Amino acid sequence: MQASRFITLDDIAPLARGCAVLGTGGGGDVRSGALAAGRAIGEHGEVPLVTLSDLQPDALVVPLSGIGAPTVSHEMIHAAEEPGRIAEEIERIFGRPPTAIMSSEIGGGNGVAPVTWAASLGLPLLDADGMGRAFPEVQMVSMYVAGLPAGLLIMTDVVGNVTTIRPVDGLWAEQIARAVCVAAGSSALMADYVLTAEQARGAVIEGTVSRAMAIGRATEDAADPLGALVAELAATRLIGGKITDVDRRTTGGFVRGTVTVEGVGADRGRTLSLEIQNENLVALEDGLVRAMVPDLITVVDTQAATAVQTEGLRYGQRVTVLAWPCDPLWRTPAGLATAGPRAFGYDLDYIPVEDLS
Amino acid sequence: MQASRFITLDDIAPLARGCAVLGTGGGGDVRSGALAAGRAIGEHGEVPLVTLSDLQPDALVVPLSGIGAPTVSHEMIHAAEEPGRIAEEIERIFGRPPTAIMSSEIGGGNGVAPVTWAASLGLPLLDADGMGRAFPEVQMVSMYVAGLPAGLLIMTDVVGNVTTIRPVDGLWAEQIARAVCVAAGSSALMADYVLTAEQARGAVIEGTVSRAMAIGRATEDAADPLGALVAELAATRLIGGKITDVDRRTTGGFVRGTVTVEGVGADRGRTLSLEIQNENLVALEDGLVRAMVPDLITVVDTQAATAVQTEGLRYGQRVTVLAWPCDPLWRTPAGLATAGPRAFGYDLDYIPVEDLS
Repeated sequence: MQASRFITLDDIAPLARGCAVLGTGGGGDVRSGALAAGRAIGEHGEVPLVTLSDLQPDALVVPLSGIGAPTVSHEMIHAAEEPGRIAEEIERIFGRPPTAIMSSEIGGGNGVAPVTWAASLGLPLLDADGMGRAFPEVQMVSMYVAGLPAGLLIMTDVVGNVTTIRPVDGLWAEQIARAVCVAAGSSALMADYVLTAEQARGAVIEGTVSRAMAIGRATEDAADPLGALVAELAATRLIGGKITDVDRRTTGGFVRGTVTVEGVGADRGRTLSLEIQNENLVALEDGLVRAMVPDLITVVDTQAATAVQTEGLRYGQRVTVLAWPCDPLWRTPAGLATAGPRAFGYDLDYIPVEDLS
Repeated sequence: MQASRFITLDDIAPLARGCAVLGTGGGGDVRSGALAAGRAIGEHGEVPLVTLSDLQPDALVVPLSGIGAPTVSHEMIHAAEEPGRIAEEIERIFGRPPTAIMSSEIGGGNGVAPVTWAASLGLPLLDADGMGRAFPEVQMVSMYVAGLPAGLLIMTDVVGNVTTIRPVDGLWAEQIARAVCVAAGSSALMADYVLTAEQARGAVIEGTVSRAMAIGRATEDAADPLGALVAELAATRLIGGKITDVDRRTTGGFVRGTVTVEGVGADRGRTLSLEIQNENLVALEDGLVRAMVPDLITVVDTQAATAVQTEGLRYGQRVTVLAWPCDPLWRTPAGLATAGPRAFGYDLDYIPVEDLS
């Protein structure tokens, strides 16, 4: 296998910054993940970043993610043994070891942590993920939308339990995996699908690790970080203002709530509210939708243009809310059925963000 | 493999009657299980009943049970496909098919249903179980008490999901299996441990299928069924009376509650109360313990001497409460740590029922 490039220590900060932006508020904290990734590269060496064309058709790709409430995963670092236990179970089931690790979810900490998992296993990371963003539920992955049967989930936790689920469909996968996660203390490491490189073609969103690093790099030394980020994302600026209300609770392994942003400066007199379920899902102004899932909605610090995750939202923060189009896969009928507004209980017909502005 | 004998259609009624008595109120309803077992023998033929000495040392024995609230399992018959899916997963993991089925829990419906599961798989039933009675939690099995590592649980449900758990210990097995069970609608079929015949020696309670049938046979044509049952069990008669209060609720996959029996006839003026968690756990009279788990406490209809399960307890019923000694395995330190009164949250030192009367 020929790696296209390597992820080095210098890549971690921009990767983390980009993943936080793509996290739309969720996917877990990037800071602890970035620290762990730096340590892992120091210990195990740089991580090869490969593309699907670098892999043999029968190579086993393992999409990994942490599952659980971000509130909890802040506090629980996945032990080094966890990816090893998943790899061991895969070898037991498939009779051969995994070839490459993939991030199930590029958004948030789940986009950064696979560097650590790949490094500790001595495996390359695939430049792709299953969302192109973050989503709160297990079945909300491109592999499911692409019609691959939800054949196999492998979960492990800090204690060392290993649970393998062969669900009848993606919704049962979510229901059982969520229950196992909550039983294990609301935090677990999970392989959702195990794919051959051949199966992965058209069923994963390619190039998203590079994309996250590019987003991070665009803002890190910019004179006007917010302007640079808006340009890099081709994003719509929904509002610039300050947070005046945060109504947030953690329940059943999820963080849910509503956040209110009141405009300042040019936006004075306007109010935007965000509906949240781990991620920012719907942005409303005067009862009208300004952006909705599966399009990406991210709250950033107005000064630094760094993403603010759901857990970091605080009264009085100066923030700008950005929205931009999701991967085209999510706009297909299957994509919208899986992760459109109705999949989250909102009685809304999906309208692309670029048509709402 | 040479079967010692066969379970025929004529054995089902006494088996069900005996299993209900050994169920101490739990283990699931025996009636629907008996109907299904009769049908399965009609369809697939009589079921060989084997002993450990009939099996090769490396024969795979699969302890099976339904897990969930009895209230729910009344309504959900395990589909014929469920044992097949478990056997398939075992063959996938061990590279060879199971040799014999064993009841994890001889008490209640879980003692009768393995006849159906064995018949539908064309496999013999081992004359043994993992409890010698019924218990509410996954780790409360003789295999765990005997020190076999809680290596593997395989669960499936009516929908078709298959979940395999490799827990770090029996308590985690219970916690994760319970969560999966509740996620699957509070009812699932479960293989708890997969044993070679060699491992099963000393780690299962032998002869309990025959014992259940003998208990059932002792009462079925007796002139004085209650007297015959007391003699067969060598039981202590705690009280004969009527039920004056039933406080029972289903929560988190369990039935919990308290039942009050006021004495009639010779027992007039006395009151016995029973503490229940799926099974009858503690019998109290005037604040003093008369019998406690792991000894067996069963409520029977005074007239017919048939066991009344937790779900069947009704205000006004004329009942007699019996108690008798558990298998010696449960009286060892490991047995009491697993299923003694403190394992259920009662601050009581265990005293054998024969020392309390």
